This record gives sequence, C-alpha cells and structure tokens, in this order.
Amino acid sequence: MTDKIGVVVWGLGAMGSGIAKVLLEKEGVEITGAIDSNPAKTGLDLGQVLGLERELGVSVTGDPASVLKEGTGNVVLLATSSFVDEVWPQIRESVTNGYNVITIAEQMAQPGVSHPDLAREMDALARKYGVTVLGTGINPGFVLDTLIIALTGACAGVKKIRATRVNDLSAFGPTVMRTQGVGSTPREFAEGLAQGSIVGHIGFERSIALIAGALGWNVTKVEQEREPIISKVYRKTAYAEVQPGMAAGCRHIARAYVDGLPVIELIHPQQVKPELEGVETGDYIEITGTPDINMAIRPEIPGGTGTAAVAVNMIPKVLRAAPGLVCMSDLSLPGALMGNVARMVAGGRSDG
Amino acid sequence: MTDKIGVVVWGLGAMGSGIAKVLLEKEGVEITGAIDSNPAKTGLDLGQVLGLERELGVSVTGDPASVLKEGTGNVVLLATSSFVDEVWPQIRESVTNGYNVITIAEQMAQPGVSHPDLAREMDALARKYGVTVLGTGINPGFVLDTLIIALTGACAGVKKIRATRVNDLSAFGPTVMRTQGVGSTPREFAEGLAQGSIVGHIGFERSIALIAGALGWNVTKVEQEREPIISKVYRKTAYAEVQPGMAAGCRHIARAYVDGLPVIELIHPQQVKPELEGVETGDYIEITGTPDINMAIRPEIPGGTGTAAVAVNMIPKVLRAAPGLVCMSDLSLPGALMGNVARMVAGGRSDG
Repeated sequence: MTDKIGVVVWGLGAMGSGIAKVLLEKEGVEITGAIDSNPAKTGLDLGQVLGLERELGVSVTGDPASVLKEGTGNVVLLATSSFVDEVWPQIRESVTNGYNVITIAEQMAQPGVSHPDLAREMDALARKYGVTVLGTGINPGFVLDTLIIALTGACAGVKKIRATRVNDLSAFGPTVMRTQGVGSTPREFAEGLAQGSIVGHIGFERSIALIAGALGWNVTKVEQEREPIISKVYRKTAYAEVQPGMAAGCRHIARAYVDGLPVIELIHPQQVKPELEGVETGDYIEITGTPDINMAIRPEIPGGTGTAAVAVNMIPKVLRAAPGLVCMSDLSLPGALMGNVARMVAGGRSDG
Repeated sequence: MTDKIGVVVWGLGAMGSGIAKVLLEKEGVEITGAIDSNPAKTGLDLGQVLGLERELGVSVTGDPASVLKEGTGNVVLLATSSFVDEVWPQIRESVTNGYNVITIAEQMAQPGVSHPDLAREMDALARKYGVTVLGTGINPGFVLDTLIIALTGACAGVKKIRATRVNDLSAFGPTVMRTQGVGSTPREFAEGLAQGSIVGHIGFERSIALIAGALGWNVTKVEQEREPIISKVYRKTAYAEVQPGMAAGCRHIARAYVDGLPVIELIHPQQVKPELEGVETGDYIEITGTPDINMAIRPEIPGGTGTAAVAVNMIPKVLRAAPGLVCMSDLSLPGALMGNVARMVAGGRSDG
C-alpha cells in the first residue's frame, strides 16, 4: 500500500468537478489523473478546470488510455453519464487496467435491474482483475435506499416503507429543466412524457431493487407515475421561467409490490422554487413496522454535494471489499472520511 | 449450509425473551437452544418461558455446556449483562464451541475502549475458531453511533456532530429506576452519582469510539456529565413515584474532543413520563458539515423492540463476515430480515 490512494477522476462536469474538489480536501488521497472528452478542458491543468487559483500538476486528457495505462492510481471515480450502456465501456477500460471503479451513474446503483447479463459480465471481469465496481450517489445510492435499509435495521418487521424526497431544482441547468419538464404547459408535459424527453427521476427501480435485495423481499411488480407539479405562482430561475398553470417540475412516484401489496412507495417531487408555494424541502422516511419509524431530514440532503460526498466516502469501503460488482448494501457502513484515507484502507477493521 | 440458521438464545430476561420472540417470526431461523441461570425458568419449555400458548420443543437449561457442546447452532444471541467482564466467559465458551456471537452487552459495542487487551484476546480467539463476535443493540449499536456514521456518509466534511436521544423510561422496571435515579431527591441523586449507584446511560464511550473509528477522528478527551432531570410535576409509573422537585430521570451528556474542539456531543435525557412536561421523545442528529444534516425521528426508536431487532437483523451480516471481533461499522449495512435468513446467508452479495 502506497502512502496515498491514487484516484483518477473521469468526467469533469458539475458532478465530476465537485468530486475532484472533495478529493483535494482529503488526506491520504491524490488525484493522479483527470479525463474529460470536452476539448475546451483537455490540455488544461485540472486546477484551472476546477476554477482554482493554483495548478495541480495534473493535465486533463481526452485520452483515457494514456492515463489508465500508466496505472498510477487505485480507483477511477466515474462521472460521465447516468446510463449503464454509456459507462460500461469506461468501466471495462478502467477494470482491465486494474482500477477499482466508483461511478455515480444512476443506473449503476444496481445495474442488474435493466442489464442482468451485463451485470454478470461486469462482476466476472472485476473478479478476474481483482477489483471492485460500485455505483452510488445521493439518490439512488443513499437517501431513498441506503438510508431506508439502515433504518429498517432497527425493525423486527416491516410492513410498508413510504419515503419522500422533496427537493429544489433551482440550481440546476438547462438539461435538468428539460428532463423534469420545468416551464412546460400541461399538454407539453404530457407529450414530453410520451416522447421520453421528460423523464423525471432516474433511479427508482434501482432504489427498489436495493431495498428489496437487502431485506429479502421478492418484488413482483413496480409501477411508476409521473405528473406535472402545476405552479399556482410565477417562478423564475437562471434557466427556467414558470407561469402560473405551467409545470414547476415533475412529481415522480414508484410503488413496488410484494404478494400483491404495495410495500415500497417512493415519492420524489422535484421542482424549482418550492418555497414560493410554501413547500418545505426534506427527506422523509416512514416505516410501518415493529416499531414504526418516522424520520425527517429538513432541508433535504442536497443532491450535488451529497453525491460527490458519497462517491468519495466509499473509496476505502470499495478498496477493502472483495473483488466484484457490488452495491451499497454489500459494503460496510458509509461514513465521512475525516482521517487519512490511505491509513483507513490499510488499517484494521474498525476504520474500514 | 443447512436449511435453517441455528440460534442459541443465552439469557431470557426481558431483552433475551424479546430476541427469542423476534427469532420465532423469521423464516430460515431455528432456536436450537435456550440458556438461563434463573432456576424458575430452567427445565421449562421455551414457549412457556416466553408466555406463548404453544411449546417450542426447546428446554431452557442452566447448563450452557450441555447446549453448546451439541453444536446444533450457528450463532449465540447473548443477553445476560451490560458488561464485558461478565459476558466474556460466556463469549469464550460460545466461541470455543464454534459459535458466532451477537451480544447486546452495551460495553461490547466496542470492548476495546475499556478492555484493550481482552478485545485483542477475543479477536484472536474468534479468528482461531473461525467465528465472528459482535456487540450491538439500539444504543449503543444503532441510534447514537451507526445511524450517525451512516448519515455522515453524505458529507464531504464534518465539523461537529450533536445528537440527542430523548426517551421515556416509564415501561422499565426497578433496576432502571434506581440506576437512572428516578424518584430521588437532588441530594440523593448527587450521592448516588458519587457512589456509583446512579450511572445514567451505559455506552457513550462506545458510541464515541465507533463514530471516531469510522470517521478517522483521533479523539483526545471524552467528558461526561450526569445531572438530575428535576420534575416540576407529579409523575408515577408502576415502579416509580416522582414528587415535584425530585428527579424524573438522568440527563447524561458526553463530549469528545479532537484537536481541542468538541466534535461529538451526545445527549441522552432519560426520564419517566416526559409528556407530562411537554417533552416530545425523539432521536435527533445534527451534523454541522458539508452539507449540514438535521435529522429527527419522532417518537424515538423504542429501546426494547429496537435492541431485539438490531441483534437479530445482524445475524446474516455476522455469519457472512470474516472471523474476528467486529463492530457495527465493520459489517455491511444493517437492514430488516423479511426473507429467508438462511438463504440470505448462503446467497449472493446483494442480499447479505
């Protein structure tokens, strides 16, 4: 074990840049490579791309092979896409070069849901190369799955789980505004849903698979509903304008059934400026069971910061795990990294 | 792997009986032995001791060796005492007979805090016999440590953790009334503290060690304060009577310092009938960090049900762990067991 864990950051959009900045704050971690396909970023020093005052001595490259073949790192933090099909070639290249992978691609939180054969292939490849591959993030990956699972740890039995994440999209850019239907008329919203341009939240099926897998529930049916959050008031952000009567966002709901009963209900209304109609953001988990547990986090754990944090915090868990494709419930308890990360990886069990 | 996980329940007081009842609800688990030192219970069928209508075909014995030497189980669930010194001989006997051990002894949540040499010996013994030993429970073991650690998983950095567990002691018996000073005058309370008959909560040092170990904080000092919760009103339970001006319970606070700063503050006011003065019970975790996280669980996760649940829920995690002495943050995410436990133990990663 070297004195620092080497990390390659692949993808330097908003999320990847956030991850890189978190990494720079950690002891015992070194960014050994930075990959991005955007020609406006390649060739620049990573510090410049991150908007820092200082150079970091790491040049952003558009050629993954040039970084990965050097083999100077232990783990790739991959923040390029939400979808399994798009990250799989990048995961394969990382794994075959001996890198562990943590990706925030939403579908990778439990890739077997949509890609069972590919998940098996990924698992086999990771085992062959002796590395571990994890998909995580704030959601899926934490709020509507990992945290729910952990809370059920105090339950002798669970009848139903109902969890709601009410968040604020105001800070997001044009892509999110479009995929959440912000500023669309009810008719445009319906058309967008039908055409697939409005998608709501990516990850409900993954969260449900994580919860059901961890608890041992055999889910027989998953239903999803998406509907516009019609604004009663005028709302405006840097990238969106919502007139009264238009959609301020998308209320996305998923229900999972076991033995004909809806045992998991996940509710995720995402909108701009929720406070203008008195909506308080928050993460809410209600478990009906023995005992009942009613949890509230107000305001919600912010998506951007949270995703970067979870991804970085899982580094020692991934490096200490047995090889293969894993999910959050396979690994030891998440937790913030406030000490030397290399020492946490090398050390005894209690800090891993 | 047999088709059922065999469990020996050692200790059939309120907690051990609760654990046995939870076990009876689980698929793929079988109680293969029951041990208690109380002659009023030995020789009876476990069903009778648990107050059930039916016999379970398991005779309660006062002779641990007779059960353990049969070797018909995989794990001992140990609920006999709060203290390392008292459970160690029982753990040793279980381990040397090839049993994994889950104990709710508060001090065992992180035994190395008070018994570093013994903890090493326990770890070595468990490794030698290829079994895993875990201390857990609702607190220590879950609310003021595991849950806190898990929440910091969404933080890029943590400056301070302040967590409060406000609970209701009304259901507890004479021992708890005495050790929490319920019904004592302020003077009696002070004397009880000085003499050690009033102790407050057992487990703060363990929770602090778990949190600090998981996050990588080097704690240099731990302070504890215990003070009476003086009642303004008359309060009465089955086992205690509190006149105005007397203690309704004990407010116990622990603070842990890193680099001279109090980074962990755990607050645990325990009293009877808190609602008579408008006190709402609950579990509250405030993390000052990036981001801040403010969590509330109202009412609090109940101690009795919660402890039995956590202990049982950790069975598959313990059976799948590498041998040795472990703590909650070493193991994969806790979660309720709603499927066949034997299958969870035997199965793939995602369900373990």
